[in-house]
Amino acid sequence: MKIEQYQIDQHNDSLLSRHQKQLRYTNEQLGEQDIHAQGIINELAAFQVAIPSWALGTGGTRFGRFSGGGEPRSLEEKVEDVGLLHALNRSSGSISLHIPWDIPEQANSIISLATSLDLKFDAVNSNTFQDQKNQEQSYKFGSLSHVDPKVRKQAVEHNIEVIRYGKDLGSKALSIWLSDGSCFPGQSSFVKSFQYTLESLQEIYAALPDDWKVFVEYKAYEPNFYSTVIQDWGSSLLFCQKLGPKADVLVDLGHHLPNANIEQIVATLMMEGRLAGFHFNDSKYGDDDLTVGSIRPYMLFLIFVELVDGMKRAGKGSDGYAWMIDASHNVKDPLEDLLQSVEAILLAYAQALIVDRKKLEQARNENDVVLAQQILQNAFRTDVRPLVRESMRINGGCIDPIGLFRNLNVRSELMNERGKLTVATGL
Amino acid sequence: MKIEQYQIDQHNDSLLSRHQKQLRYTNEQLGEQDIHAQGIINELAAFQVAIPSWALGTGGTRFGRFSGGGEPRSLEEKVEDVGLLHALNRSSGSISLHIPWDIPEQANSIISLATSLDLKFDAVNSNTFQDQKNQEQSYKFGSLSHVDPKVRKQAVEHNIEVIRYGKDLGSKALSIWLSDGSCFPGQSSFVKSFQYTLESLQEIYAALPDDWKVFVEYKAYEPNFYSTVIQDWGSSLLFCQKLGPKADVLVDLGHHLPNANIEQIVATLMMEGRLAGFHFNDSKYGDDDLTVGSIRPYMLFLIFVELVDGMKRAGKGSDGYAWMIDASHNVKDPLEDLLQSVEAILLAYAQALIVDRKKLEQARNENDVVLAQQILQNAFRTDVRPLVRESMRINGGCIDPIGLFRNLNVRSELMNERGKLTVATGL
Amino acid sequence: MKIEQYQIDQHNDSLLSRHQKQLRYTNEQLGEQDIHAQGIINELAAFQVAIPSWALGTGGTRFGRFSGGGEPRSLEEKVEDVGLLHALNRSSGSISLHIPWDIPEQANSIISLATSLDLKFDAVNSNTFQDQKNQEQSYKFGSLSHVDPKVRKQAVEHNIEVIRYGKDLGSKALSIWLSDGSCFPGQSSFVKSFQYTLESLQEIYAALPDDWKVFVEYKAYEPNFYSTVIQDWGSSLLFCQKLGPKADVLVDLGHHLPNANIEQIVATLMMEGRLAGFHFNDSKYGDDDLTVGSIRPYMLFLIFVELVDGMKRAGKGSDGYAWMIDASHNVKDPLEDLLQSVEAILLAYAQALIVDRKKLEQARNENDVVLAQQILQNAFRTDVRPLVRESMRINGGCIDPIGLFRNLNVRSELMNERGKLTVATGL
Amino acid sequence: MKIEQYQIDQHNDSLLSRHQKQLRYTNEQLGEQDIHAQGIINELAAFQVAIPSWALGTGGTRFGRFSGGGEPRSLEEKVEDVGLLHALNRSSGSISLHIPWDIPEQANSIISLATSLDLKFDAVNSNTFQDQKNQEQSYKFGSLSHVDPKVRKQAVEHNIEVIRYGKDLGSKALSIWLSDGSCFPGQSSFVKSFQYTLESLQEIYAALPDDWKVFVEYKAYEPNFYSTVIQDWGSSLLFCQKLGPKADVLVDLGHHLPNANIEQIVATLMMEGRLAGFHFNDSKYGDDDLTVGSIRPYMLFLIFVELVDGMKRAGKGSDGYAWMIDASHNVKDPLEDLLQSVEAILLAYAQALIVDRKKLEQARNENDVVLAQQILQNAFRTDVRPLVRESMRINGGCIDPIGLFRNLNVRSELMNERGKLTVATGL
Repeated sequence: MKIEQYQIDQHNDSLLSRHQKQLRYTNEQLGEQDIHAQGIINELAAFQVAIPSWALGTGGTRFGRFSGGGEPRSLEEKVEDVGLLHALNRSSGSISLHIPWDIPEQANSIISLATSLDLKFDAVNSNTFQDQKNQEQSYKFGSLSHVDPKVRKQAVEHNIEVIRYGKDLGSKALSIWLSDGSCFPGQSSFVKSFQYTLESLQEIYAALPDDWKVFVEYKAYEPNFYSTVIQDWGSSLLFCQKLGPKADVLVDLGHHLPNANIEQIVATLMMEGRLAGFHFNDSKYGDDDLTVGSIRPYMLFLIFVELVDGMKRAGKGSDGYAWMIDASHNVKDPLEDLLQSVEAILLAYAQALIVDRKKLEQARNENDVVLAQQILQNAFRTDVRPLVRESMRINGGCIDPIGLFRNLNVRSELMNERGKLTVATGL
Repeated sequence: MKIEQYQIDQHNDSLLSRHQKQLRYTNEQLGEQDIHAQGIINELAAFQVAIPSWALGTGGTRFGRFSGGGEPRSLEEKVEDVGLLHALNRSSGSISLHIPWDIPEQANSIISLATSLDLKFDAVNSNTFQDQKNQEQSYKFGSLSHVDPKVRKQAVEHNIEVIRYGKDLGSKALSIWLSDGSCFPGQSSFVKSFQYTLESLQEIYAALPDDWKVFVEYKAYEPNFYSTVIQDWGSSLLFCQKLGPKADVLVDLGHHLPNANIEQIVATLMMEGRLAGFHFNDSKYGDDDLTVGSIRPYMLFLIFVELVDGMKRAGKGSDGYAWMIDASHNVKDPLEDLLQSVEAILLAYAQALIVDRKKLEQARNENDVVLAQQILQNAFRTDVRPLVRESMRINGGCIDPIGLFRNLNVRSELMNERGKLTVATGL
Repeated sequence: MKIEQYQIDQHNDSLLSRHQKQLRYTNEQLGEQDIHAQGIINELAAFQVAIPSWALGTGGTRFGRFSGGGEPRSLEEKVEDVGLLHALNRSSGSISLHIPWDIPEQANSIISLATSLDLKFDAVNSNTFQDQKNQEQSYKFGSLSHVDPKVRKQAVEHNIEVIRYGKDLGSKALSIWLSDGSCFPGQSSFVKSFQYTLESLQEIYAALPDDWKVFVEYKAYEPNFYSTVIQDWGSSLLFCQKLGPKADVLVDLGHHLPNANIEQIVATLMMEGRLAGFHFNDSKYGDDDLTVGSIRPYMLFLIFVELVDGMKRAGKGSDGYAWMIDASHNVKDPLEDLLQSVEAILLAYAQALIVDRKKLEQARNENDVVLAQQILQNAFRTDVRPLVRESMRINGGCIDPIGLFRNLNVRSELMNERGKLTVATGL
Repeated sequence: MKIEQYQIDQHNDSLLSRHQKQLRYTNEQLGEQDIHAQGIINELAAFQVAIPSWALGTGGTRFGRFSGGGEPRSLEEKVEDVGLLHALNRSSGSISLHIPWDIPEQANSIISLATSLDLKFDAVNSNTFQDQKNQEQSYKFGSLSHVDPKVRKQAVEHNIEVIRYGKDLGSKALSIWLSDGSCFPGQSSFVKSFQYTLESLQEIYAALPDDWKVFVEYKAYEPNFYSTVIQDWGSSLLFCQKLGPKADVLVDLGHHLPNANIEQIVATLMMEGRLAGFHFNDSKYGDDDLTVGSIRPYMLFLIFVELVDGMKRAGKGSDGYAWMIDASHNVKDPLEDLLQSVEAILLAYAQALIVDRKKLEQARNENDVVLAQQILQNAFRTDVRPLVRESMRINGGCIDPIGLFRNLNVRSELMNERGKLTVATGL
């Protein structure tokens, strides 16, 4: 299925007058605060969020999975799904592949498909947290950190293979989430696990093309429930320091201990020039992988306040970082869920962009805590939806992506095409 | 110091045209969703939040306290401070006293003062978590739950005395926060502590006037760091069930374990007809007692979604519950902080009032999770500040309470009147 | 495979002299504190922990599962596995079935098998958290709490069917873990979910045989990540109060929010006469389902301190409650893991039994916190392993169950019998 | 008051035969595992834990403080109190001073007093989390990180002054706990706060004598409840890396987010050669500052397992690190509480020393998780109290320090000497 531009245009036309009225009001209100709305709309329009290939099907938990229907059956269909999203919101212009779930047998044809949908290939992801059929060594007790050098070798080679696939597709980064760790006190040596992992990462690092980066993700717990080798940003940073300038830290919002101040971590990593980018999602308890912004939208805004600040300091645009959604769609249509997540990201970005930085700095310099809070809340409480809608519209996308998705019965079309019982590879 | 109506009027006049433009837009936008803004403004105008007498001075932690200046030196000055707040926002029309910090020596003169400022007396609070000078029995090891009947007797009598003070002032409820518990495993018997507390509460309950309520607060921990006798809503409810219909559960937002779903607790208590009301504040780690809405504004909104629902089900207005702020103003001017808190409460209430309940119910009945989320977020993302400002304005308050507070230099006036080094009683 | 008594006897003989020396020393040491070791050994010998049928295979997470080998392929083989455990430790004398994973096609033959292994059938467990093949209604959006009465009906009937299976086997209780809840704010109405669940439970309750109980389990989160209908002990208790005297609360150690004081919950439930029993496991982060006692052994001890106290108050023995292990064996041999769990439970029970209750009460009455802590720690620091070993030995079990399990190469025998790639039903 | 050696000897004599019997048994049992008990006793005897000068009085919370009696009124009396502890357990041979609470007016006389009690001066602690009377600049909004250079200068100079006091006493380290941070989003710039702090620390670092160290402590939250400048070990390490080789990370057990794996942090810091030492305490919820080992003794043991490992790897003895207790004695006699803490530390150390490292490494190399757990638990479940008692005895201390403390009525003696209402400086 493909969404045609005329369908988007018709949809937009029907909403245009209302949208323009809201936009006009928003522009005026911001103008009175000396904020130039068009500049912000342009920044929003430039912001692109990658979609992971494994998030296009229904997710599940260890207790089960309730499939939807019309899930993509192949890499091609996954690319098509991302194409649908991007056609609707023009903000999802890249796809992040997961090897071995999505091995591109013929790179060229996949690249043409993607190009035809205006999609690029973002970071490629390796997988050493599961055993694949006929795999020689098992990752039951670890991969890059395993006590047995044969297992480490296999895991290193897998990562190097993933780089090869990525090169063919035009990716520029390898993203490593290492689930290695232990379930019980005593099970493994923290120090040896660190050292083995470092050696393994160094071999992978050596295989990186010159213009590539490696992203080192951290996670406090799960699937290991006592310790994780790369347990927090401090560990990730330590590995990156030892690896070299091509290694940066990847932040997944759900990978922290309860109550962590993630925005401070982000600020620190940017200060050190070591922020690779994000895996966006939201959560209430653990790595719940919920829709972005569905639980703690103010925290998401605060993170973007730091991102905007850090990008300005670094003199980099939003294309200097890797933004991706990493969520699990257990009870929602995956495509609708992703549209909600992208919208939430753009809203937080828009709110962060309208923060009055000068006043904020002044308030901070005077320790005027009341005013500093008010400045942030003023931005957060502003209804910036017209800006986000406009940013999609001027890029050729929809004013109301989910609305059109439903009007066009996209999901039933996909079920007709693919069947009601298809199950996408992934978690 | 007193703020005159003409000062408020002048202030409002200067902001009026901008306010009216925003209000008109908001009304229109809501109107298109079939929401009648004026009705909501009226509900907001009727919502009154009590100010606790102990929150008018600078707060502190066990590590220290950095006083501001001009803190109220007497009960009269505390009432005056609340009067200032209420003059500004017309939403803080009552004061909640804490005995023995605020013993009203002459009830009549205090009542006249309060009446002159349009203030009422909300629930009275007892204190058995500190020893007062010359107190016979010590509360070091508990009060209502103490193993020694003499201590329990003293604590019961103190509570009954608090009721007496409250009767004189026109209060209608006794609010009990019992800090009793233990710091170490083994220190006390959970069951005996419960039973002693129950007996003590029953004696207090017996002394309640017919038209009074007793509010039983719970708290997970602090100042006891191993166990607390009334540790959670389940414990509070159990006590209330055993006491009788005049006992209800009081929810303090900061008194839960990490990640608790407080809105569900609120819904359950309202379902059982046992919600007394709230102590509002916000927190990131523990009972941080921060400004309401400063950390988790979406959660505050979700709580109000339940409150609006529950009030409708119960056929009660917002005056059927006890709303109070209970925060600690460590780094902000206490009065400005309270104005920010009241504003945050009214914003959350306003957002909850514009939730499209019919559509929400329909979405729930169809398990349309995407839509259900969108309905809530649509309300939350709407800029309802014009509604809140209007609700204050039509009550005779300010469009921008903090703005006028600063314009009038209220704090320096108070410092002139009271001195720079005054320290209010309280925490 | 079956373990013969002579094998156990030979094994014990080889360890006997060392064991007896240790036991003699322990008895002496306890004797000096006026504690009669034999009485404690007898209590330990009487303590039986049920093994759930779903914990006999390798467990996994949403990220994958690394099977071991020789996992039971049928209900018969599951019963045999429990028989092996019970032969080794004589403390695992019952099995708890999970329907529909373990439907006993012919009750009689399963009962004979169990009887031949000296096993009974503990509580039966229903499952409405997964869809089974060809199931008419889906539980994707709930079961007993579903907005659609047809789904609720199906879920109620499933529970009643489970009771029927249980009756055939001689079970006396239905254990309900209801995973129903919501993943996103707005998704469902807390109050309606509660009410629907209550109605459903009432229908199930009505179908309970006279001498049966229903156990109502609670869980803070997972697999739903925003709310759970029965989220905490307070909710469970509320349901039980509304249901009647045959409904009790089941505590799973992993089902709480961070830092919860579980021992206090246990004490309160026993005080109310509403403790059904336990699902034992351990955890560091969430419902990690780790080996009992592997993370927080002191907390386990404190829970047993309350259990011993509560049983005495209630005049009931340990057979008056339902004890079960509910863990997930992701990186250990399931049978060895279960042996470690049972051992940890018995050790905690033994430690709790040697607490000097009289002295403790006196210390509490004098608020001698130092001494109260010392009394508990004195018990906890005592090496009670000889008592636990003796309790198994006098029952006909092993002094070192895991030792014999390994000596006899039980796992390789099972792999020979059943194959290396068998996967047991369950999570 | 002073405890005489003959009093200790008499006390030991009365317990000797029982102690020797237990010791003999323990030695035998360990001997059968090829563990040489005497070596372990010697290691224990060499382990010295510093006592902080601020922990000798009753502690409190923001809600109040319930003083005991006989609290030390001067630095001399604080030294005497530590002398009493050290006389009893011979494991508390140093004192850690807090400036400005304990300014040694005349270093020489304090040194003689300490020497006469066999005490040394451990790390000195600065305080910029409180304002002192007549202090020019306030620390309300920070100290080393303050936006105002005048405040930072004052804080830097205070730290340099603390070094001066320490030099006079023979200390070799400055310990910095920086409470700086923010209470509200927006209040301060994370990056500027970090940079200002770094500059301030560099000035302090420059003033360190050649043979000194500076310890950089971290804390997740409290007294600031939104962010803390040095929030976690990763931040501390980053500061230390930027400062130089004389800066190490200090770990306080209570300064982490819920569920943190502290033992892994310790292992990582030791691997990096950056562990300064410890502030020991225990906690259930936050920085509860409870008696060491009173809540999570198994975690304490696991930390010592890493410490023993790391010391061996580094070729350092226990005197190569700074060990201190940092607890708050709210409901116990401070001296008894400290005796319990020291005992708990030594027990954990003893348990860690008897872990069979060779077998553990082998189990790890074979991924024998069951065995690895068993090896740790075997050590933890062993009753090592006789070893700890013997280590105190051979050093000239008591077999039962708290027992003798009570027999000699130390507290009432102190109350007689000092009065019942004395309150020590400190928190």
